This record gives sequence, structure tokens and C-alpha cells, in this order.
Amino acid sequence: MQVIETTRALQARADRARTAGRRIALVPTMGALHAGHFTLISEARKRADPVFVSIFVNPTQFNEASDFDQYPRVLEDDLARCREAGVDAVFAPPVAELYPDGATTWVDVEGLTEPLCGASRPGHFRGVTTVVAKLLVAARPHVAVFGEKDFQQLAVVRRMARDLGFDVEIVGVPTVREPDGLALSSRNEHLGPEARGQATALVRALDAAEQAAAEGERDRDRLLAGVREVLAGAPLAEIDYAELRDAETLELAPAGLAGPTVLALAVRFPARHGGDPVRLIDNRVILRPGTKAVAEARKEER
Amino acid sequence: MQVIETTRALQARADRARTAGRRIALVPTMGALHAGHFTLISEARKRADPVFVSIFVNPTQFNEASDFDQYPRVLEDDLARCREAGVDAVFAPPVAELYPDGATTWVDVEGLTEPLCGASRPGHFRGVTTVVAKLLVAARPHVAVFGEKDFQQLAVVRRMARDLGFDVEIVGVPTVREPDGLALSSRNEHLGPEARGQATALVRALDAAEQAAAEGERDRDRLLAGVREVLAGAPLAEIDYAELRDAETLELAPAGLAGPTVLALAVRFPARHGGDPVRLIDNRVILRPGTKAVAEARKEER
Repeated sequence: MQVIETTRALQARADRARTAGRRIALVPTMGALHAGHFTLISEARKRADPVFVSIFVNPTQFNEASDFDQYPRVLEDDLARCREAGVDAVFAPPVAELYPDGATTWVDVEGLTEPLCGASRPGHFRGVTTVVAKLLVAARPHVAVFGEKDFQQLAVVRRMARDLGFDVEIVGVPTVREPDGLALSSRNEHLGPEARGQATALVRALDAAEQAAAEGERDRDRLLAGVREVLAGAPLAEIDYAELRDAETLELAPAGLAGPTVLALAVRFPARHGGDPVRLIDNRVILRPGTKAVAEARKEER
Repeated sequence: MQVIETTRALQARADRARTAGRRIALVPTMGALHAGHFTLISEARKRADPVFVSIFVNPTQFNEASDFDQYPRVLEDDLARCREAGVDAVFAPPVAELYPDGATTWVDVEGLTEPLCGASRPGHFRGVTTVVAKLLVAARPHVAVFGEKDFQQLAVVRRMARDLGFDVEIVGVPTVREPDGLALSSRNEHLGPEARGQATALVRALDAAEQAAAEGERDRDRLLAGVREVLAGAPLAEIDYAELRDAETLELAPAGLAGPTVLALAVRFPARHGGDPVRLIDNRVILRPGTKAVAEARKEER
């Protein structure tokens, strides 16, 4: 497995693969790899060879310097696990490689980035789209793989890649969960035991809403009241947002749900060592196009 | 010569050339090609094979709908002349190809884009950098060639390409001029005969400043007073800006010039048929790094 630290070296590697007629996949990560990331890597492997993984804690997508500083960095472990997983090359550049001295160029997606995490974390998506554009320029992938846990990020990256004309397929992979349903996240390890116990409230709220939609509930506010009731059962949880939105445009869902709808949650829990709160996100598409409840559609597929 | 209308087809053409080990040059234009453009194309030909020319009147870099509407469009003539000039492929996409329905992604360079044309034409450079990024993604060139007449544009495009990591050499080509010194521009044809006569005031102002610098003048305001005096000799001229700036950072030059310095001019003249005024720009680097007057340096080179 090659470890690459410069954009030019990665481009050279990508050019060799392309000249040989190979299909390149990129899995962008911030490191601290967990089973969720390795699901992305497996998905990438199914679709391409070589598989590149980028490991870069991107400073411009953090709102708080403390969050950036505290973000776990375990490069040697990550590299060992990538090697075991059969990754072909890891791109682990220093910050100055992706943000050279005097860099003032930003890639920005308007509209889609305004609600939800965009509202809670001003500038966050600008950092994401800027770094992902740089990674696509550097890795020249045919396929780039992202987790569906970051639902809005996936929509924003898809839009950016399409708008700029990148010849890349953006693939979303279903969220990987702990046995009790908590979505895997590098942030989970900052939860104290009590918060960790209550953090399943997110997935339980998603389950409840999905179930209600499957039973025919189409009233947005009743669905959200149910979601808030479940979250209220976790007294440590502080809701950042709990919203029903159009699953494609991310516009607010109408009072009577009438199209593909996603329930998006962001909730803060106290951190293990009394640091900044831990912000967890999760989401589920509870109605698919044609206003069919996802749970119903799933039954039909069986 | 191939005429290509889609990003995917251009990418496929670029991939074939790259796989064959060829070096690709791109010359981005808005069409209405004149001798200045063909100088860019010759420069491209010296450095690469194949040479791609893009012809796209980019709506997002115009401030006025009327300016966009009036911009000359002579695609058939342009194609014939590109064919004669030995261009390998012309990329002439419809607007919806580079700005698909619902496109909301912008590439923006901060800082460099604020003064000069950025101040006079809000949003102009955002349109330029966005479309040039799309063209670089589409054409995958090793070299992209721009005219030095658009001095600020060249600096902004260089910065954007570097910041996003495009593996492309941005080449600037000296301005091509009419026999009387007027810089070639597609806009010149909109000048009435009297305005056309007076339009040489720009180049005469550049000459005067270059000469004064060569004679040792380092006082910014005296140099600019000289420039304004020359421009005042053209009563139809309305100055948009006439500024001395650091030739690299585009920051305002200090009162005593002490580094590489560019004189940048933008002047409006009445249009031939009484339409919107015609805005002409021109520039010259009058001091090179080390505060050597350009005219002196030129003598030494002989």
C-alpha cells in the first residue's frame, strides 16, 4: 500500500491507473477509521480497482478550533487497518498541501447547504465542498464513496460534483450501526457511559417515525411530535434540529407529506470528560418517491 | 477538427489524448475570435498537441443582461478560423451543459478579486473562476493559455488553479495590439470612429508611465497624475479606474513604489450606436521585481 502526501504524486498515481484502463475509487475520510469507513472501502472495492482512501482532518469544515484540535488522529492505526483492508493507496497530505500559503479559493454550493447542519454550522459545508473538490481534482476517481449518515453532505457533494462537471459517480452507502442501533461515528467515543446509553434515542426516534409513516401517518407535525417525544426520553439530549425535509431538495416538508421525505436529526450530548458537547447526527428516508412509506416498500421487496 | 458540445465528450477526448501520452492545451475564449486569440492558439500549439479551444459566452461573468445579449456571437466564422488555425477540437457547449438545471455551485477566489474589475463588476470574477474550473475539469489540459490583457483575470485564474490543485500550467501571453497600439478586444468593434481614435489614450498612458518609471520616477501619485493627464486628452474617455498595484498580490502600491508594479486601466467610451458604453481595459507592468523599470530591463536584455 502506497502512502501519498502530495497532490501531484496522487495525480501521477491516478494517471498511471487511468492509462492502464483501471477504474479508480476514492473514499474520503478524516481518519479515526471505524467499521463504517471499512464498509465504504468494501463498497469501493466492489466497484473499482485501485481504491484510494484519503485521510485528512479538514480544518475548514470545523466551526470550533477546539473541535478541530480534539478530533481524533490515529494515522498509524488507520494506515495499518487500510493495509489489512487491501487499500491500494492512502492520501494523507499535510494541511499546507491542500491549503497552500495564501489559498483563498472556495467552492460553495448555495441552497442545499442552508438548512440543517448548514444552519447549525456556518461555513461547514463550504469547507466540505472545497476539500472534496480538491480531492476529486487530486485523485481523479471514477467513483467516490460517502456514508449516508451525513445525508445532507452526500446531497451537497453530489450537487457540487455534477455542477462542476466531475466525471465521477458519487455513491452513498447505508449507515453502519452498533448492535443497539447507534450510528457509528468517530465522535461516539467522546460520550460518557450515561450519554452513550441515551444516544440510542436518535435511532429510536427514526424507527418510530418510519413506523408511523408505514402505518399511514402523513401529518408532518404529528410525526415530529412523536420524534420529540422519543428524544425527550433521553434527558441528556439537547436537540439541535429534528426536521422533516424533501429528501431531494432538502426543502421543508409540507404539512401533509406528499413526496420523498427524510427525517434529519442532530442532537448534543455531554462529553465524557466535560469538554464541548458531542453532536450526533442521524437520518432516515421515511417516505420514498410516490409517497410510499419506506417500511412498506421494504416489505414489498422481500 | 472536432466540434464538441458536452463535457463528457470532451473528457473522453481528453482521456484518449492523455492515454496516448499527449500533452493537451486549452485556450478558453468567449468567441468573436480576433488576432489576439490566434496568438494564444499559436502559443498553445508550441506547447501541446492536441489544442482545444473553448467558445462559450459565459452568462455568469456579465454584470448586465444587455452586455451579455450584445456580446458578439459568430460561431460559424470562429469555427472556420479555428479549423484554418489547426485547432484539434472546439468545445462549444450550450449554456445548460455548463450550468445544468438547478446548478448552485460557485468557485470563488477571495482577496485578489476585490479591487479593480472586481470592484467595478461585482460577481464578475466568481463567474470567471466558476466557468474556468468547469473548463479545466472538462478539458483536463496540461496547459491553459490566457491573454495578459486581462491581467487581474490571469492572476485570479492562476490562484484558483493552484488552490484547487489542478495539474495545469497557466500561461499568460502578451497583449496583441492594433498598429496604433490599441489592445485587441472583441469590444473594440462597438466603438464609434471618434471614440476609436481616442481609445489609444489607454496605451499612451501606459507608455507614459513606463517611460517615467524608466527615468526613475517612483512616486505613485505623480505617476498616476501623469496617467490621468494623458487620459484627459481623450475627452470621450470616462475613467473607471487607473491604479498602480502590486503586480503579484494586486494590493495598492505604496506611495513610494518599491516592488513589482502594474498600472491597470479601465476606461469607458461611448458606443457606436448609442448603446451601453464600451469598457476597455489595458495594463502594463512598469516595475519588475527588484524595482527595476521594465523599459530599463528590456534594454539590458537586448
